[in-house]
Amino acid sequence: MQWFECDYAEGAHPRVLKALIDSNALSTPGYGEDAFCARAKALLRSQMQCEHCEIFFTMGGTQTNLLAIAQLLRPHQSVICAQEGHIHTHETGAIEATGHQLLIAKDVDGKLTPDSIRAVLAAQMPIHATQPKLVYLSQPTEWGTVYTRSELSALHALCREAGLLLYLDGARLGCALAAQPDVSLPFLARVCDAFYIGGTKNGALFGEALVFTDPALCRGFDYLRKQRGGLLAKGRLLGAQFEALFTDGLYTQLGAHANAMARRLQDGILAAGYPLLAPSATNQVFPVLPKALVEFLETRYVFRRWGVPEDPEQVPIRLVTAFTTTPEAVDALIADLA
Amino acid sequence: MQWFECDYAEGAHPRVLKALIDSNALSTPGYGEDAFCARAKALLRSQMQCEHCEIFFTMGGTQTNLLAIAQLLRPHQSVICAQEGHIHTHETGAIEATGHQLLIAKDVDGKLTPDSIRAVLAAQMPIHATQPKLVYLSQPTEWGTVYTRSELSALHALCREAGLLLYLDGARLGCALAAQPDVSLPFLARVCDAFYIGGTKNGALFGEALVFTDPALCRGFDYLRKQRGGLLAKGRLLGAQFEALFTDGLYTQLGAHANAMARRLQDGILAAGYPLLAPSATNQVFPVLPKALVEFLETRYVFRRWGVPEDPEQVPIRLVTAFTTTPEAVDALIADLA
Amino acid sequence: MQWFECDYAEGAHPRVLKALIDSNALSTPGYGEDAFCARAKALLRSQMQCEHCEIFFTMGGTQTNLLAIAQLLRPHQSVICAQEGHIHTHETGAIEATGHQLLIAKDVDGKLTPDSIRAVLAAQMPIHATQPKLVYLSQPTEWGTVYTRSELSALHALCREAGLLLYLDGARLGCALAAQPDVSLPFLARVCDAFYIGGTKNGALFGEALVFTDPALCRGFDYLRKQRGGLLAKGRLLGAQFEALFTDGLYTQLGAHANAMARRLQDGILAAGYPLLAPSATNQVFPVLPKALVEFLETRYVFRRWGVPEDPEQVPIRLVTAFTTTPEAVDALIADLA
Amino acid sequence: MQWFECDYAEGAHPRVLKALIDSNALSTPGYGEDAFCARAKALLRSQMQCEHCEIFFTMGGTQTNLLAIAQLLRPHQSVICAQEGHIHTHETGAIEATGHQLLIAKDVDGKLTPDSIRAVLAAQMPIHATQPKLVYLSQPTEWGTVYTRSELSALHALCREAGLLLYLDGARLGCALAAQPDVSLPFLARVCDAFYIGGTKNGALFGEALVFTDPALCRGFDYLRKQRGGLLAKGRLLGAQFEALFTDGLYTQLGAHANAMARRLQDGILAAGYPLLAPSATNQVFPVLPKALVEFLETRYVFRRWGVPEDPEQVPIRLVTAFTTTPEAVDALIADLA
Repeated sequence: MQWFECDYAEGAHPRVLKALIDSNALSTPGYGEDAFCARAKALLRSQMQCEHCEIFFTMGGTQTNLLAIAQLLRPHQSVICAQEGHIHTHETGAIEATGHQLLIAKDVDGKLTPDSIRAVLAAQMPIHATQPKLVYLSQPTEWGTVYTRSELSALHALCREAGLLLYLDGARLGCALAAQPDVSLPFLARVCDAFYIGGTKNGALFGEALVFTDPALCRGFDYLRKQRGGLLAKGRLLGAQFEALFTDGLYTQLGAHANAMARRLQDGILAAGYPLLAPSATNQVFPVLPKALVEFLETRYVFRRWGVPEDPEQVPIRLVTAFTTTPEAVDALIADLA
Repeated sequence: MQWFECDYAEGAHPRVLKALIDSNALSTPGYGEDAFCARAKALLRSQMQCEHCEIFFTMGGTQTNLLAIAQLLRPHQSVICAQEGHIHTHETGAIEATGHQLLIAKDVDGKLTPDSIRAVLAAQMPIHATQPKLVYLSQPTEWGTVYTRSELSALHALCREAGLLLYLDGARLGCALAAQPDVSLPFLARVCDAFYIGGTKNGALFGEALVFTDPALCRGFDYLRKQRGGLLAKGRLLGAQFEALFTDGLYTQLGAHANAMARRLQDGILAAGYPLLAPSATNQVFPVLPKALVEFLETRYVFRRWGVPEDPEQVPIRLVTAFTTTPEAVDALIADLA
Repeated sequence: MQWFECDYAEGAHPRVLKALIDSNALSTPGYGEDAFCARAKALLRSQMQCEHCEIFFTMGGTQTNLLAIAQLLRPHQSVICAQEGHIHTHETGAIEATGHQLLIAKDVDGKLTPDSIRAVLAAQMPIHATQPKLVYLSQPTEWGTVYTRSELSALHALCREAGLLLYLDGARLGCALAAQPDVSLPFLARVCDAFYIGGTKNGALFGEALVFTDPALCRGFDYLRKQRGGLLAKGRLLGAQFEALFTDGLYTQLGAHANAMARRLQDGILAAGYPLLAPSATNQVFPVLPKALVEFLETRYVFRRWGVPEDPEQVPIRLVTAFTTTPEAVDALIADLA
Repeated sequence: MQWFECDYAEGAHPRVLKALIDSNALSTPGYGEDAFCARAKALLRSQMQCEHCEIFFTMGGTQTNLLAIAQLLRPHQSVICAQEGHIHTHETGAIEATGHQLLIAKDVDGKLTPDSIRAVLAAQMPIHATQPKLVYLSQPTEWGTVYTRSELSALHALCREAGLLLYLDGARLGCALAAQPDVSLPFLARVCDAFYIGGTKNGALFGEALVFTDPALCRGFDYLRKQRGGLLAKGRLLGAQFEALFTDGLYTQLGAHANAMARRLQDGILAAGYPLLAPSATNQVFPVLPKALVEFLETRYVFRRWGVPEDPEQVPIRLVTAFTTTPEAVDALIADLA
């Protein structure tokens, strides 16, 4: 079976794995107080051109989102996000479990706009509704689309004006950086109050790097991460992996490869005459295929049906590429569409 | 200024107040372990024709909803409700603050349908989405509409089939009982797993009666109520008020009066040629009036603008009647519409 | 049966009740946005000599404690309190239910000392233990003792030095003010970051007044109170009661009466040769009596056994007086000790 | 510097690392739905002689404890544990952050007794105190001591009788199994309602195996683990590690090695004439040494001072051995004591 189900079906990129193997026998302090984490943070700060940024390594995306949002909000404050925002639909109510409400703003192909956020703000009755305080974006979005530099600048400006914090979920940030190079790490460090650089879905065994661009926002975060079970005893595992990922451009290279495989796939699907739920710029592709074809593909490939189809004969699916995806696998699937 | 802002602008009905005055000097055990509460519960059980129902008095609507839902759900379970459900828009994220997600189902004039609930169930991805477990209804709804007997039966049947609990917010239940007599207390005790009989908005100083129709569902609730600050030290205040409200049919009479005043108001508004946001059967009326007229009325009456108008010249407002509303006040407002 | 079980066995003082009756028919805005609350707050600010204090009315003691502490702490911060602190033993884990740990400091007759607090601070391992941030005191304490002015000054100084907040639970503050007049409201407003003035146990039907002496500490508290079910719809009920209690010194007079009755009781017990668990200056008395005598008294008086006796033949009990306790009732009990 | 600070200073045992390397390139389903996890669970079930046990892999000890306890308790229920219980002193209030109170029972060298638990039960006032529902033990305890078979049987019997759940924290279970072989996995599966088998501190890179011995107790746990950020995307990493640890007895061998090194150390310390805080049977040793000696050792070894010394000249320290500790390192330290 060829794998298009997700971007976490294999282990680590060989260079990441090597970093773990090479460090295995060393003795270091626990809980991330080690030289690997220190070096990885220095590398990230340098590549973000943000020396005052504070970085915390965490173990997975849901954990990172819930920790960041629990850190950034007071109990009565809420999050503005898209209907398909990962925190809304795919994290088992993790944000609500920390006590915070999500307010859904309209999106265009997964992207929020200043107007959609303003509409949410206008609808909340003070005291009796929660106080919107944080805007949650994903880059790329859940539809594979990416925010442009001007779109993010406009959202940043609105947030400053309205007293909102801007938080960006970078689970697949490697793909976004490759697809939209001018939305770079230094740019993100300027427009976001916090964001995370995802390792799990881009070449690491596991691990994310959560960045607070204003140190005042992360006071006590080291306690919170421990309290919620997010502090890894052998914390250097995260440092070693991120050091490898951010050495010699590996992180963006892996994203670029996954994007290239997805584009090849998307082009083949369109050439075969099938529509897409949304046009993706990154490593997730959402074709809508005849039911019989989907059933046939399910005998040869691993992937997911996506959402509840309106027409049961036309089934949306999600195909995901990764740093491990080969052109041969993509071409085989395209051939099978014919 | 005449008051159409809400149904909690005055104190208690004289018979409720008298019950408090008459009991004032008596010594009784605290925390609701008194004879007043015992008699009030017996009265309610009898009028619900439900001897096994468990009843807990609480102090207000938000408190009751959050306690009931925290009691009925496990941490990973969520609530299905309407977009305008009180818990979604007017309780400051109280349910999320107990850790539970709300899932929004489509409504028709504020009412959920089996199909809208089924659509929510179908959209949740197991493990990665919360597990829907409870349907939240209001009777009357936030639009003043009421569920019929057959509508509630259909929702009850779906809940049984799908393993969902049915919970009904009766903040204004007196008005609903008066408007739709066959959706009676005994009927509610049969179709709901839990519901509350609202006192605050129907003649009490404060207080609600939360009913669990299956005793197995309320194990430990006495602890939870105390833990969340909902156990009144002088608990007999609640018992005395509910005893007065449910003696000689006072509760439904007060609802009927408020409804009659609202109907008089609604008829006058329609006769004056103004539309309604929704046709109300109970004590809330939602006309859409020209902006200038709204501004004029604001000089003579207390009421709320409702929602964000799409057309800034046409402003939706909410007018609420209560057990204290007089026909003269209603007629004066109608006259002012001309 | 004569009642010595608690100080919430009867309704309100007649002047408090009259305030409720007199205001009953008036229409006012809901949620405490009314003139009664405004006047009561002005009265309290004046008597506290603290014009910048922010005051919020709440419905009961547990609710007040949990709201205040949830407001004042970040998720990783904890509370230092005495073993017998009300929040530790009698509020069903309300503080933990808001996510905060309690750290127990040694007490002397219910009172914390700077040294006992310093010992707690020294024992916490950063990151891996919670961060102590708030000291919880009761005045009077759970043993009926009261902090002196110099004791509170010393605790205040330690808190300032160690970056801790000082919060005082005044459930029975009327008795403390009467017993220790130099620990006055203006003094408390200077040494505490927040405290509450209890109504429920001193003449009100229900209600407490929570005071934040630094406005920066209560940002968003109006949302939090609503979210946790602590915002009374007919909020003026609280304003009207506190206005009555703080007019013409009623509040302290009621405390003084309860104290006088308790002293009479305590003197009688000591004269009869029975020991006390702790010497009380306020309205709770804790004698240790022979089991047979306790069983006899239980046939004539309502009171509670207190704690688990070490010697089953010597049973500690708690006797509580209130604004309603009569000298005759006290003398009858003393006579029955013989 | 020689390392005696903790048992998580190095990476994985070579056989565990090899399992990760060998599986790195394979494609598998995410979230633990893979063959590695399935095989590891089968292996554990077989070695526990408990086919109906349910096993969930998690990422670290604090995470496991908070997830297990959040799963097993209703909101009003509390945990009985020792003063030095890891959840009380070293997990940043993780249990309170899930809303649950800890009740401290007296211990003997870190071990709870039926009498100490009964005393806690007797002291709780129903409704006004939390309901004790779960006993938390560590095996080995935080003092390195181990429960015997008869001690655990007695605790199990008390729990059954009192309606309590028995939960055992096995962060260092490998050492306990080696030190007290008759407290075996099958025995633990019979006496505990849930327990975890720690990987992090015994040869894994990270990871714990949480066991529910009654499937009814883990309903919905798969949702809860995801919601709190404890579901690893590449879940097979945990399966592969536990498969390696439980093949050919590696897990207990690693514990036995660490114990042997600790015994060698403890014998050397006693022979040198220094006392211990507590006699340890496992891999943590707690000598009390003269301050000057501690300062000297700190120039050559990494270890922690332990607690606040009563006498500043006599400093308790903690020395921890691990599967990586060599006899030479131990002998060097002993030599330096002289």
